[in-house]
Amino acid sequence: MKGPARAKSMVFFYVAQMTAAAAAVMVLVWCINFRGGLAFESTNKSLIFNVHPVLMLIGFIIMGSEAMMCYRVLPWSKKANKLIHLVVHGIALVLGAVGISAAFKFHNESGINNLYSLHSWLGLGTISLFAIQWILGFITFFYPGASMSVRATSLPWHALFGVFVYLLAIATAELGFLEKLTFLEGSGLYRYSPEAFLVNSTALVVILLGASVVLSLIAPHVENTKIYNAE
Amino acid sequence: MKGPARAKSMVFFYVAQMTAAAAAVMVLVWCINFRGGLAFESTNKSLIFNVHPVLMLIGFIIMGSEAMMCYRVLPWSKKANKLIHLVVHGIALVLGAVGISAAFKFHNESGINNLYSLHSWLGLGTISLFAIQWILGFITFFYPGASMSVRATSLPWHALFGVFVYLLAIATAELGFLEKLTFLEGSGLYRYSPEAFLVNSTALVVILLGASVVLSLIAPHVENTKIYNAE
Repeated sequence: MKGPARAKSMVFFYVAQMTAAAAAVMVLVWCINFRGGLAFESTNKSLIFNVHPVLMLIGFIIMGSEAMMCYRVLPWSKKANKLIHLVVHGIALVLGAVGISAAFKFHNESGINNLYSLHSWLGLGTISLFAIQWILGFITFFYPGASMSVRATSLPWHALFGVFVYLLAIATAELGFLEKLTFLEGSGLYRYSPEAFLVNSTALVVILLGASVVLSLIAPHVENTKIYNAE
Repeated sequence: MKGPARAKSMVFFYVAQMTAAAAAVMVLVWCINFRGGLAFESTNKSLIFNVHPVLMLIGFIIMGSEAMMCYRVLPWSKKANKLIHLVVHGIALVLGAVGISAAFKFHNESGINNLYSLHSWLGLGTISLFAIQWILGFITFFYPGASMSVRATSLPWHALFGVFVYLLAIATAELGFLEKLTFLEGSGLYRYSPEAFLVNSTALVVILLGASVVLSLIAPHVENTKIYNAE
């Protein structure tokens, strides 16, 4: 990787770390300060719901963001970076699955329908594609591992499909913020309240996170395009 | 552009045309058959609202999709393709602005708050960025036109920022489908009704449209990556 490209990629990486930290703090402030906290078991079913946005954002999206970036950014060997990439994505998948189960648990214990909304459709689709991508990546690049020519052919598609699934996850999070806030506003929350402002702002920060993560991954390619054009 | 890359790019182009046609039909069936039709002036304010999804999807997103792809796909000279790219994007911008004004008109005449939702925040942000991108593109690549070196440096950023704004538009459309359907379901529409299924399915087709448009734009790059890796 060339010097300037690496530098640009790192700028986006640092922006991604800052937006990830901001988004994590904001979702915690929302769910704990404004919505009463988190619980897996409670007579106050809202506390069970609150596990969902926290785990999906911090456990699935932010953990997935780090897993994507670490492969490119960490200073160790390709083999070590690949193992970390694989393990951190695996943790994200597990935390995401637990986060989704919290939403189902909240629905079931509150007598709310399951799987009728676009958020739920896209969310289940996203984590299913994520799981398929993880398994295919494991088989192709880790164990038993495909031939070098298959790996070389698969790699750009693995990266491209990974970015696609990541963007789906970001879009699903946006839908989740809007859906929950619309419900709360339907139950009396003032539309211009500090809480509404916090939730919408968190959703915007998540978009900045997604953009900076994707840029940190493709920045060298942009640089390369310029180099090829200039040559 | 190499043969196989061009072929692959064309496959995604055809998929984009099919999903665009499907999405256009679906949003019209929704707004006309299920929601009573379109009107700029009416005592039935819902008909004014219905102009919004139709113009945003067909006028802004589908027109914008065609404008992005035509630069790469049309068989004419670079100059002719560029002019079409510019004009069709200009039409998309105008239709999008009219579509947004229909939403404000509906809100104002129905006594509904403006600009409180994530959908409205992202939507206004998206069309503003789109307008900035159009103006910068006009100045840099059309009239008066920047120097060749500035053009060469700007082009990959123009393309990258264009894709970013396009993805924001797709995400905003998803939010719009979910928001409107949540309101309708809050007013009594059955959550597993044919209409709910139609709206969610339209939203999924729009995601497929977005994915196929972006793939039709970057497909050669994927192909190039493989060629560079193999060499």
